[in-house]
Amino acid sequence: MSVNLTPPSLAIQRQDREALLDQTGKMIWFTGLSGSGKSTLANALEIELHHQGKKTFLLDGDVVRQGLNQDLGFSDEDRIENIRRIAHVAKLMMDAGLIVICAFISPFKAQRRLARELAGVNRFIEIYLNTPIAICEERDVKGLYQKARSGNLTNLSGLGSDYEIPENSEITIDTSITPIAEAIKQIQKLI
Amino acid sequence: MSVNLTPPSLAIQRQDREALLDQTGKMIWFTGLSGSGKSTLANALEIELHHQGKKTFLLDGDVVRQGLNQDLGFSDEDRIENIRRIAHVAKLMMDAGLIVICAFISPFKAQRRLARELAGVNRFIEIYLNTPIAICEERDVKGLYQKARSGNLTNLSGLGSDYEIPENSEITIDTSITPIAEAIKQIQKLI
Repeated sequence: MSVNLTPPSLAIQRQDREALLDQTGKMIWFTGLSGSGKSTLANALEIELHHQGKKTFLLDGDVVRQGLNQDLGFSDEDRIENIRRIAHVAKLMMDAGLIVICAFISPFKAQRRLARELAGVNRFIEIYLNTPIAICEERDVKGLYQKARSGNLTNLSGLGSDYEIPENSEITIDTSITPIAEAIKQIQKLI
Repeated sequence: MSVNLTPPSLAIQRQDREALLDQTGKMIWFTGLSGSGKSTLANALEIELHHQGKKTFLLDGDVVRQGLNQDLGFSDEDRIENIRRIAHVAKLMMDAGLIVICAFISPFKAQRRLARELAGVNRFIEIYLNTPIAICEERDVKGLYQKARSGNLTNLSGLGSDYEIPENSEITIDTSITPIAEAIKQIQKLI
């Protein structure tokens, strides 16, 4: 006996998942140099949204590079592939109905554009953290600038590797002068 | 003036997201030959779960190969990388609190084991569709068996390419004898 398989007439779509979650999926994309404040703001934003009952996920460099992108390094080619994959993962999560917060240096315009295109109109919010590099280097949260200055790191965005400045970000924030709470307020207005 | 960045003392964790979604994140993994019924059952399962108010996402081959894994082909090496990436994406989605349904031939044990390990104890349900290959070929939903028999496809799992039979699946279903509704019931008991 053979039971014929027929594809289900109805499949669950993004709008069904969004209705169940009672929200619209979004992609919130932080870009900026190491030390510009991406992770700090992304975390603070997620905490705020979560407490409002929004269903969120935070994709950041450390998590992704330890798992999905553990095969990639920091050459231009690998940075491009790193962000290409992340953009597609963020798209899938957005299609699940989530508000996906992405915090990556994401130094090149082309991959940021890809993320924006995948998200679609009114679903992508790019936040450029234009904190001066001198401040980023002073913070040096991960010790990367020291490594770069001492010649032990050749590919740091802003020093040995390019960072292409965004031209059409929805928001630009300098975290050396804007307090976290104020920045979060500005971002929330757009979500 | 420099505002010092301090990482937030509290970050949102999987348990916080699960509490908000009122469910436990899971990874439900369908494996089996082309035509064995993976997509059909995965879709039917998602519809059922969705109607129960569960927050789900369905990862399947067509979607992933058109986006995230568009750079991969069907060599053994690429099939391995295909499933490696998917396992990591499914893990991220599970950490978002979702019940992630994965429907992939996933022919090799090592990558299915990777997915299981990433999901963790009590979060992974492997469903092996052991529908006889003769039935899969008779259905030939995608026309792949015909292509393989006529020599236009060399890498089809079960014909030109290996399929390593699962040994410790949580459920085994032959969709040529088990109706969809019955199969869904069996799976739901384990979720």
